Amino acid sequence: MQSSPKFRPSLAIAALALVTTLPASAQFQKPEQAIKYRQSVMALQGAHLGRIGAMTSGRVPFDAAATQANADLIVTLSKLPFTAFGEGTDKAAPTRAKPEIWTNRADFDAKAKAYQDEAVKLQAAAKTGNLDQIKAAFGALGDACKGCHDKYQKEL
Amino acid sequence: MQSSPKFRPSLAIAALALVTTLPASAQFQKPEQAIKYRQSVMALQGAHLGRIGAMTSGRVPFDAAATQANADLIVTLSKLPFTAFGEGTDKAAPTRAKPEIWTNRADFDAKAKAYQDEAVKLQAAAKTGNLDQIKAAFGALGDACKGCHDKYQKEL
Repeated sequence: MQSSPKFRPSLAIAALALVTTLPASAQFQKPEQAIKYRQSVMALQGAHLGRIGAMTSGRVPFDAAATQANADLIVTLSKLPFTAFGEGTDKAAPTRAKPEIWTNRADFDAKAKAYQDEAVKLQAAAKTGNLDQIKAAFGALGDACKGCHDKYQKEL
Repeated sequence: MQSSPKFRPSLAIAALALVTTLPASAQFQKPEQAIKYRQSVMALQGAHLGRIGAMTSGRVPFDAAATQANADLIVTLSKLPFTAFGEGTDKAAPTRAKPEIWTNRADFDAKAKAYQDEAVKLQAAAKTGNLDQIKAAFGALGDACKGCHDKYQKEL
């Protein structure tokens, strides 16, 4: 897992390990706070992926620096939402999260990891400044999103 | 982005200039998207500041690595919300943003900058691992939040 240069890797990794091993109740006082948190992360991921998508689809002129900044942010954001799917966060507030998340936890976690891995690959592609590589990585990332949403996210 | 070779360079340059000089609201296709975006950032800032606050207040044992990870994230997040207060984003969806944001723009921007600066100072304090320094920086950051919210955020 890559991190931005200003991160101290050992600390960041230690902190991430801590965060991911604490029960959700330790991070969120109420389950509805966890639901709001993960929905907020999803909204930001969508906004910033949308900015890259606008360039890969040609709707907006390609800007390598903007792509890099958005990809860096996606990597940071990708680490956050999965801390907020603890037990008891399946129905405390309106949520599109399906109950299968908590009955197929290992599969859900594997899909979360696949998304995080694709985010790191997109960041690496962005570093090359090569639009074809960025398009390929962005497509793979989109597949990872869809793979999880198709199975674990309720339709609107 | 395909156009006749004759016009491509000038169009590309013109388009790039457009993108880099457009107001922040141009990042969002609809004003309600900007409102949702900034509310999402605010929710995440609140959650992660709350984790540091739990340690500075003694409710949770001090953890230097967790403080650092949260402060790093706050610095990243602090750069985001103020891109989403463009013209026309004052009322397209329920928002606590007061109309004075758009009539006192220079003052609002100065307060936004003050918050961002305090976030960087909190990050620096977190790097020392010294809880007293972290408490001081966290207090100053809280004052910056409050200074803006008191003037530009509607009461709940």
